[in-house]
Amino acid sequence: MPELRKDMIRGHWVALATDRALKPNDFPIAQKNMIEGNKTSFCPFCEGHESETPPEVDAFRDHDSEANVSGWKVRVFPNKFSAFDTALDLNPHTEGIFPVMNGVGIHEVIVETPKHDRGWQDYSEEEIYTLLQMYQRRYAAVAKDERVRYIQIYKNYGLFAGASLEHNHSQLIGFPFVPNTFEGFSNYYQQKGHCLLCDLLQQECTNQERIVYEGEHFVLLCPYASRFAYETWLVPKTHRQHFQNLPEEEVREMAHILRMYVPHMFELLNHPSYNLMIHAGCVNPAEKADSEHWYMEIIPRLMVQAGVEVASGVYMNPVAPECAASILREGLK
Amino acid sequence: MPELRKDMIRGHWVALATDRALKPNDFPIAQKNMIEGNKTSFCPFCEGHESETPPEVDAFRDHDSEANVSGWKVRVFPNKFSAFDTALDLNPHTEGIFPVMNGVGIHEVIVETPKHDRGWQDYSEEEIYTLLQMYQRRYAAVAKDERVRYIQIYKNYGLFAGASLEHNHSQLIGFPFVPNTFEGFSNYYQQKGHCLLCDLLQQECTNQERIVYEGEHFVLLCPYASRFAYETWLVPKTHRQHFQNLPEEEVREMAHILRMYVPHMFELLNHPSYNLMIHAGCVNPAEKADSEHWYMEIIPRLMVQAGVEVASGVYMNPVAPECAASILREGLK
Repeated sequence: MPELRKDMIRGHWVALATDRALKPNDFPIAQKNMIEGNKTSFCPFCEGHESETPPEVDAFRDHDSEANVSGWKVRVFPNKFSAFDTALDLNPHTEGIFPVMNGVGIHEVIVETPKHDRGWQDYSEEEIYTLLQMYQRRYAAVAKDERVRYIQIYKNYGLFAGASLEHNHSQLIGFPFVPNTFEGFSNYYQQKGHCLLCDLLQQECTNQERIVYEGEHFVLLCPYASRFAYETWLVPKTHRQHFQNLPEEEVREMAHILRMYVPHMFELLNHPSYNLMIHAGCVNPAEKADSEHWYMEIIPRLMVQAGVEVASGVYMNPVAPECAASILREGLK
Repeated sequence: MPELRKDMIRGHWVALATDRALKPNDFPIAQKNMIEGNKTSFCPFCEGHESETPPEVDAFRDHDSEANVSGWKVRVFPNKFSAFDTALDLNPHTEGIFPVMNGVGIHEVIVETPKHDRGWQDYSEEEIYTLLQMYQRRYAAVAKDERVRYIQIYKNYGLFAGASLEHNHSQLIGFPFVPNTFEGFSNYYQQKGHCLLCDLLQQECTNQERIVYEGEHFVLLCPYASRFAYETWLVPKTHRQHFQNLPEEEVREMAHILRMYVPHMFELLNHPSYNLMIHAGCVNPAEKADSEHWYMEIIPRLMVQAGVEVASGVYMNPVAPECAASILREGLK
């Protein structure tokens, strides 16, 4: 049974599959793969292989195509290897001194394209727009499950970003608790009475040195305390907790900026692994999210998290965000 | 000038070099290296190359050998590429709304062996004992700098654990603040009036299913909320905040267990990258560390931290610690 266990020392939760264990040879980054590359001969995410995945829960499809066959642009199904299960009760309790609850949650795979070898750096603006629409749709759908308290959408591209399959896909997890990672938002709101990210954005737009691009509705910037080299955030200018009801005009601009920025970053940094992630406020009840301001993170993975980061939680970043922004601005159009 | 910047959202600190930036090609895990391997033709850490490093601050040497020449077993010098600098004042302040202080701190490299291609899995018990003695000595020496508040000793072995040079070395950082990573210790102490790790150890030794090995003074176990697959902790049975004054008998047993366990884990998991890390209580004033209990973490890096971990701070671990302990116990002697 999947479980969520609280780390009493660090305060974070760990999602665990208790009844099965990857054996040493099952890990995607076994040294063999690292050297020979990670080409798979059969891909369950490719068009025509729909019967190899769990049945789809959503898709953008040609008018006349049925579920679970060819004819889709974006396709969504439950993650087969999830540490979460919708059929459980949460049942929070302790095992001796250890807090634990069942791994209630929703874990979905969003296959971004029917073609095996295309990524965000190859997508047209229209393809990105379509994908963002699906993110909005799944976010709204998963938020309807009242047991879900926080929704994380993320994408792993490449070995060093945690991708285990080559075919481009994103993932969505609906957690039954709100991770304590973003407490800074509510702390700031309690102290100052306004939104941390609104204030941050105002300061950055005045200062300009960490701005990569400013559009009508969005600012792309390198955050002041960047944990990762060449980390950027795509921050919406309008204060909203959630992004699923974003007006079409803003989703269009978001697609435009990502179409411009992702291939530029990808070339400039020599085709790195990267993560895309959307942080938004908690759901159920959504009112609790007043202090939150949704945004997207785009993080190239040029270094791994070493012992010092893992142990102390303090990040070592060899590239100041002012330098990163200056390099990333060059040639961006 | 190196700076420490506080991430206001997550609450952690980031160590930054503000006046230089690694260019895209400088990163150790550029894809080229990933495929061709990372062999360096000249190693500054090898015996005979002492003039290529900063002058040593400590070493175990043959009786008649001088500093900064051949004839050493373990050698310590300041990290040439540190984000920390001892010559600064802390000067905590804000830049607009952003908290920042200067990167005051001590960052040392501990070269573990004069030979290029030997690692913990190859060391004799005596070599490990010697290295642990040097850890104790450096910990005690760095704690004398009253600006240092927390000392982190860590080792990165292999590409996926963050090693940038092949020659085996450990590192020590003396931070000018106490990372908030271990607040669970003080929270538990305030609530219950005793030590979290003492209670945890008692429960684990009664339960037995996550114990890998029990010695006279130490227990090797897979922690209940393991963040990483096959994560183990080497926990001393005696409650102590710090390990620099550990009796010789206990250091000897620690060396004995590590000599037995590290090569076993290394073979079992197909020569993985791994981190070794020592967590101990804060220093200056050391009394503040009453609730802390030092311990060592041994973490194979079989998966990278993917988007979900980076974004939400929730770890996904596909190997339950009960399974890991059962696999790791087999054949251990």
